[in-house]
Amino acid sequence: MTNHVSLPGFRDFYPHDLAVRSHIMTAWRDVARRYGFEEYDGPPLEQLELYIEKSGEEIVRQLYNFEDKGGRAVALRPEMTPTLARMVGARAGSLRKPIRWFSVPQLFRYERTQRGRLREHYQWNVDIIGEDDIAADAEVLAVALDALRTLGLGAGDIVARYNDRRLLEALLLHAGVAPDRLLATYAVIDKIGRDSMDRSRARFAEEAGLVDTAIDAVLALFGADAALADLRVSHASNEDVMLGIERLERYEQRLHALGLSDFIRFDPSIVRGLAYYTGTVFEIFDRRGELRAICGGGRYDRLLASVSSADLPAAGFGMGDVVLTELLRDRNLLPDGRQFVDTYIIALSETEQPLMLQVAQSLRARGESVMYALRSAAVGKQIKDADARGAARVILLGPEEVERGMATVRLMATGEQHDVSLDSLTSDRIAATS
Amino acid sequence: MTNHVSLPGFRDFYPHDLAVRSHIMTAWRDVARRYGFEEYDGPPLEQLELYIEKSGEEIVRQLYNFEDKGGRAVALRPEMTPTLARMVGARAGSLRKPIRWFSVPQLFRYERTQRGRLREHYQWNVDIIGEDDIAADAEVLAVALDALRTLGLGAGDIVARYNDRRLLEALLLHAGVAPDRLLATYAVIDKIGRDSMDRSRARFAEEAGLVDTAIDAVLALFGADAALADLRVSHASNEDVMLGIERLERYEQRLHALGLSDFIRFDPSIVRGLAYYTGTVFEIFDRRGELRAICGGGRYDRLLASVSSADLPAAGFGMGDVVLTELLRDRNLLPDGRQFVDTYIIALSETEQPLMLQVAQSLRARGESVMYALRSAAVGKQIKDADARGAARVILLGPEEVERGMATVRLMATGEQHDVSLDSLTSDRIAATS
Repeated sequence: MTNHVSLPGFRDFYPHDLAVRSHIMTAWRDVARRYGFEEYDGPPLEQLELYIEKSGEEIVRQLYNFEDKGGRAVALRPEMTPTLARMVGARAGSLRKPIRWFSVPQLFRYERTQRGRLREHYQWNVDIIGEDDIAADAEVLAVALDALRTLGLGAGDIVARYNDRRLLEALLLHAGVAPDRLLATYAVIDKIGRDSMDRSRARFAEEAGLVDTAIDAVLALFGADAALADLRVSHASNEDVMLGIERLERYEQRLHALGLSDFIRFDPSIVRGLAYYTGTVFEIFDRRGELRAICGGGRYDRLLASVSSADLPAAGFGMGDVVLTELLRDRNLLPDGRQFVDTYIIALSETEQPLMLQVAQSLRARGESVMYALRSAAVGKQIKDADARGAARVILLGPEEVERGMATVRLMATGEQHDVSLDSLTSDRIAATS
Repeated sequence: MTNHVSLPGFRDFYPHDLAVRSHIMTAWRDVARRYGFEEYDGPPLEQLELYIEKSGEEIVRQLYNFEDKGGRAVALRPEMTPTLARMVGARAGSLRKPIRWFSVPQLFRYERTQRGRLREHYQWNVDIIGEDDIAADAEVLAVALDALRTLGLGAGDIVARYNDRRLLEALLLHAGVAPDRLLATYAVIDKIGRDSMDRSRARFAEEAGLVDTAIDAVLALFGADAALADLRVSHASNEDVMLGIERLERYEQRLHALGLSDFIRFDPSIVRGLAYYTGTVFEIFDRRGELRAICGGGRYDRLLASVSSADLPAAGFGMGDVVLTELLRDRNLLPDGRQFVDTYIIALSETEQPLMLQVAQSLRARGESVMYALRSAAVGKQIKDADARGAARVILLGPEEVERGMATVRLMATGEQHDVSLDSLTSDRIAATS
């Protein structure tokens, strides 16, 4: 029989891959829990219209959508926010606000793109719904950064660049951008780091219709040393700008108090591609700038009302597993994924087999992971197997030792051996046996 | 905007539902780890032919299958074994045998059945691949039973009924069933508990072509007190039966040594519906017989060779989350799913806000879950919120206490209050503060 293959763009998780995935997800869940967030989940398959309503018909090109046997237009979820909005919308009245929820869904897309591009990934979603104070914005960014810290990344590895669309809007209007050209201007700003300066100027003129003086004024905002303090001086007379600055200063103060000063930087060129953000926006990058963004999020106060009957403000982010795994691998911060067991038991003859199983159960009841050979084999071969399975210790049960009520323990790291009493291995109390 | 709904047959997991799911999955993963099994996962979507090859064209009726945008015939996975076989087949040479793997996939099917029937569920899959000794069969049953014990179910709640198709085959041949009528006879036996005696007799005659004497001999096997010891006496001269008995006796001995005697019972009428089992088969039921089987499994030595290039013997089981959740709910063994946080911090004035965040971070660094209000509110309202969020204690930071370097701790269960030093809350060392 020939071997089947998996679908293009889908990953198999062999145990060493699953160990890496699990390492990351454990950090995500643990940090979310430490901030008092509760986990939820929805179906991987939803009605297609849920996504069209949020993102327009053009989203369908990128979706893994199809018609099911009941004639329904359905799609494998490309993002979690519409499901979140649907679930909150259905019970908005009875859920305690602000809602602090997180999820770790697998997401899907179908793009006819280059080979090797994935069609699925896992994404940590963390959201606070029902609170419009900027404290909520700071809280979700702190959750994202603390998870990355928990995974071993420091302020030398990553930086969160943040901005506020309300501030940027005030700055752009002040620079002479017409209100109806704001979205087009955002689109050019979003690419400002990747396009050349000439290209950006040309796009500001062509796509956003800006005149030269406006382009100069806009570009002046995005120096490498952009700082709120400078804007405070240069825009002291503009109320909207000052309000935007004060809001972001409160955001900064909370993040400072949360011990994250070294991880954050104001960057007025951060706008995020998605149209639905209404306030703060942030992206977390590796400092070396080698990878795409690790995480992105912000405030989206109008989205819930647009896809459900719940009109609630919201702030949140999504952090995918693919770029993060690359970064952690680059920085040597991933577990090696090799199997580990606490104890491997070897019965020297058939007679000790029942005792072997009894000892195994006692140790398992204490939480240890325990293995043994399932068929007779030479002791040397079993010790080799124990080593290959990552056993920390081997317990040898031989007729003579068992006769004396003892067993031999061998620590695999050092090869050191010593005897312990069988009582200490089979009693319910936890004994110091290794 | 009107609210969207989820697709029929798909569950939303609100936090209290997710807590139940997580409770069960944690037990599954923990017990698998204690037995030295490693977790793997595959894609939720596979090539349709992977399932057709294993189960035949008729399986397509029950699948959630469709054509993707690349013209591929694909299906949402209805079971994990084909993916397991595919993954093992691709790396059979380099994987250490026996392979001890488990997985917790979400599975899908599309049947036009009654309302309320689910189209997805989660299923724990545990398999040992590359070992044909009956010790492997006993090992996987022990894993299943230990997980159920870990979830609080005792020998009074559940029983594993086991059989061996090799033994049953020898018994049926001895009873006069023709070799080419074995599969048809299994199909009738599979329903013997649900059909009336008259109906079973009629089906044995019509569907399996058995004559009256054969029917009598077959039915005589399935008394409520069926025992291997009796078969030993009644079939002493039949070598195949004796071999089958000896094999199952070794199976029993291992399960006894593993401390599971009270959880298992020989039942020669267990055959399992699936055609691919080749040896032991088992099903775990609630003792009251109110629910469908909680778990089913056995040995399938020919399956891997039939869908991959790896010709390896295998034994394993699948345990779904739906029936198990029903049983645990009936027995009052589920967590209530209410939110829990260790600490809720209240700053009595704006001045203590930075300190509040600093204390929160210190406690989080120790692994505690910590919350606070994201906007100013009266203290009474905040204490009410702390209670609603399931906080174990509240820390009050007031100007006077902070001045003295102290904070007030209130234990929510008793209302008892005492003061602790701020140092003990913000230092890195873990202090006895509650």
